[in-house]
This record gives sequence, structure tokens and C-alpha cells, in this order.
Amino acid sequence: MILVTNDDGIHSKGIIVLAKALQEIGDVFVVAPDREKSAIAHSLTLHRPLRVEKIKKKFYAVDGTPADCVHLGINAILPGRPRLVVSGINKGGNLGDDITYSGTVSAAFEATLLGVPSFAISLVSRSHFKFDVAARFAVRVARYILKKGLSKDTLLNINVPNLGEKKIKSYKITQQGRWVHNGSAVVEKMDPRGKKYYWIGGGQLVFDKRKNTDFEAVSNAYISITPLHLDLTHYPSIGRLKKWRL
Amino acid sequence: MILVTNDDGIHSKGIIVLAKALQEIGDVFVVAPDREKSAIAHSLTLHRPLRVEKIKKKFYAVDGTPADCVHLGINAILPGRPRLVVSGINKGGNLGDDITYSGTVSAAFEATLLGVPSFAISLVSRSHFKFDVAARFAVRVARYILKKGLSKDTLLNINVPNLGEKKIKSYKITQQGRWVHNGSAVVEKMDPRGKKYYWIGGGQLVFDKRKNTDFEAVSNAYISITPLHLDLTHYPSIGRLKKWRL
Repeated sequence: MILVTNDDGIHSKGIIVLAKALQEIGDVFVVAPDREKSAIAHSLTLHRPLRVEKIKKKFYAVDGTPADCVHLGINAILPGRPRLVVSGINKGGNLGDDITYSGTVSAAFEATLLGVPSFAISLVSRSHFKFDVAARFAVRVARYILKKGLSKDTLLNINVPNLGEKKIKSYKITQQGRWVHNGSAVVEKMDPRGKKYYWIGGGQLVFDKRKNTDFEAVSNAYISITPLHLDLTHYPSIGRLKKWRL
Repeated sequence: MILVTNDDGIHSKGIIVLAKALQEIGDVFVVAPDREKSAIAHSLTLHRPLRVEKIKKKFYAVDGTPADCVHLGINAILPGRPRLVVSGINKGGNLGDDITYSGTVSAAFEATLLGVPSFAISLVSRSHFKFDVAARFAVRVARYILKKGLSKDTLLNINVPNLGEKKIKSYKITQQGRWVHNGSAVVEKMDPRGKKYYWIGGGQLVFDKRKNTDFEAVSNAYISITPLHLDLTHYPSIGRLKKWRL
């Protein structure tokens, strides 16, 4: 069994194409938010009950977050334990530090927390999404994970350039890149009543120039595969901090 | 200058006690959400403009997330660049994997992304918060960071047991712990109209038993200091994945 979810909602074309492609290699169940969840909380919903609506055979809509969908899918909806969770195909990249806030990646995190191998897959574009290319690549990755597994407590974050299959060179194993602010990042404006308001994002966001990052791969027409884990501890700092005398 | 924020909202006692304590060592500005934000998105608000309301001298309420507050505080509100950002004092712990979803920690992340040293501080309890003890410890940490700095791209996640000062043994430098699900994690119920609904969290969440984690420290009456960074890449997997032939 393969559990498929996303944060664009169960009616997004990305999840439909993905689910269909994965049927080639497994019994696919879709459990996804009943609407787009990109802009809301990615945590588990603990303060209210959740409703599940069966939309059609093996398609379930949840009035919660992507993490909720994975949690309910594994613990309540699916008839057995899935061997893999796939989150996507997201409309838009999840590169660099953006993954901290990504619903797509948070669903894969939740699966990892529950001990099920998983990956997130996103298309790096703002429109004209070529879901088929990404879906075919997802099948290749899924097949490999089902055969070989992933290291404990890790997941994969995959970003696919929005290009025709022939224009994509290959794939690269990468590390997480970093956004760098270039210039002022806030724009101040005045409303018709003379009151100030602010837009975040006035400055230009550019990526650092390091080699082997997710961003470098995608901008050179490669699919990026970044292995992630859940432990944010910065181990090199531990020894240093132990010398502090607070 | 020190920028103070939180995710419980600008009227929370935790931020007021914290700001007051930090005045001892610097010029403190408070920029915080205008209401409690624990349960909503922790990303930057890019799809709508933000309003800032000056509540009193050096206190600004923002109709956005904790990350928005840090971003606007540094780039638009404060008269100069802060030397430190402190997020808290949160009503409730931010231990183990919970930090992935924590508004308190996300504010500190945003500061780190913008190149300003920062830490998050939380009280591990559900009620009867002893903010004074945590605030005094925050001052000690802040003083140290202002003097010694932090490693590039790192921040501190501090959790304080909710005990009287004499009952707290000392502090420990720790690593991020991990929640483990114990038993079924979803409870299924039936509403009066015969429709099913689900509660997440039916099972018991317990921590792994590893040594030197944030959880171990706090449960033994120590303050926990975990150094974090923003890079989720699992480097040991890179070599292994490079051997895949997808």
C-alpha cells in the first residue's frame, strides 16, 4: 500500500496525476486536505476533531492539515500499514530554507515520525505545470525505496524543474540551499486614509552560490533529491556551549 | 538593541516579563503578534499586506505570524539593527520534534535567517507559569550571547522546567529528543447524527530514552539548552543515495 497526500488539496491536478502513476507499482490510497492548505498550519490538529469524507474509491478528504492526513491515513483510514508515503506533486518548488514552512514536506516528515519511508515531490514553477514528468520520476523513486528502503528517520525532498522530459538532464543528490536577502526586504506603503502598511518581500531573494545545493541542481535543469532528517541539533555547537559558564 | 517576540501574542504575560527583565542589559523593543498565533501558520505572510500598531513606547503589535514580527521588526520597525532576538517566554515546552511546528522557535529561525543571533525560551508546563525564573535565565543567556556570539546560522532552543528557582538544579547543553507513539494514536467517535469523527492524540506520546536530550534534562529539573541550525540535510545519506541508479 502507498499513501499519497499533498497540501494543495485533494482536487489538485498534481495529486491526481501522482496517484494514477503510482498505481503502476502499488495499491494507492489518497488521503489529502479537502482544500488548499499551503498557507496554514502544518502541525497536527489536536484542539478539535477531524472529519473524513470518502470522495470516491480510495480517495479520502480530511478537513485538516497535510500532517493530519498522514496521521489519520496511517492510524485510522488505510486498511493496513503503508510501505511508503508520497507527498505532492506540489505546485511550486520547496527549495532551501523554504522547507521549514512547507506543507508538502511536513506531510513527509509526519510519515517519517510514524516510521514509514516517505518523500515529497514538487514542481519548480508558478504556472503551466508539467505534472507528467514529475509523476514518472516519482514512480522511479518509489520503486527504488520499496526495494532498498531509506536510512532510519530520513526522507527525501525532490524538486523537479518544470521542463519537458528531454530538456531535463538527469538527477542530482543535493544538500539544502539557503536563501539570501538582497536589498531591503520590506516595502512600506500608505493607504487612502493615511495609515501605513507593509509588504514583506520587497527585496530580492537570491540563493547562496554554494555548489551541490537543491537550487543549483534545479536551475541547471537537473532534478534535485535532498535527503533530510528531523534532528535540527547543531552538534558542533554542543562542545562549544559546554564551555560557557552561565 | 534587543528585539523580543513570541507566538502567544503581545498581551501574554510571558513576553511582558521577558521584555522587562531584558531591559537590564539593553534597549528592548517588543514586536509581537496582536493575538495568539500558536495554532496557525509560522511562515512569512506574503499574500497580503501587514498592519503594525504601536501599543505603547517600544511595543508594536503586528497582524501576522511570529516570523512576520521578526522580519518587520528588523527590516522596518526598529530604529537600527538589533544585536539579539529573543522569542518567548512560551506557555508550554518546545521539546523534541515539536520544534518543527513551533511558532516560538520559528521566530528565532527567522532572526537567524536574517543574520541576527537569537534564542527561543519556553516554560514546560500547562498552567501556573513561573515566568520570573525563566526571565532571569534569559537575561543570563542574553548577556553571554551579546558578549560571545553564536556560531553562524545557529540558534538556541531553551526549555525551563516550571519549578521554583531553588528546585532547578542547573542547566544542560542537550540534543533534540524524539517523541515515540505508544499505542493507537487516533480515537474514532460517532456524532449524534451517526457520522464518524476522529481525534488525533488518543495514544500516549512518550519520549525516547536516549541520554542528553532536551526532554531528559527538563524531566530531571535541569534547564535545557539545545543548539539548532536550519540545515535539515542528512549528510550521511548523500553518499548512499549517490550509489542509486534511478
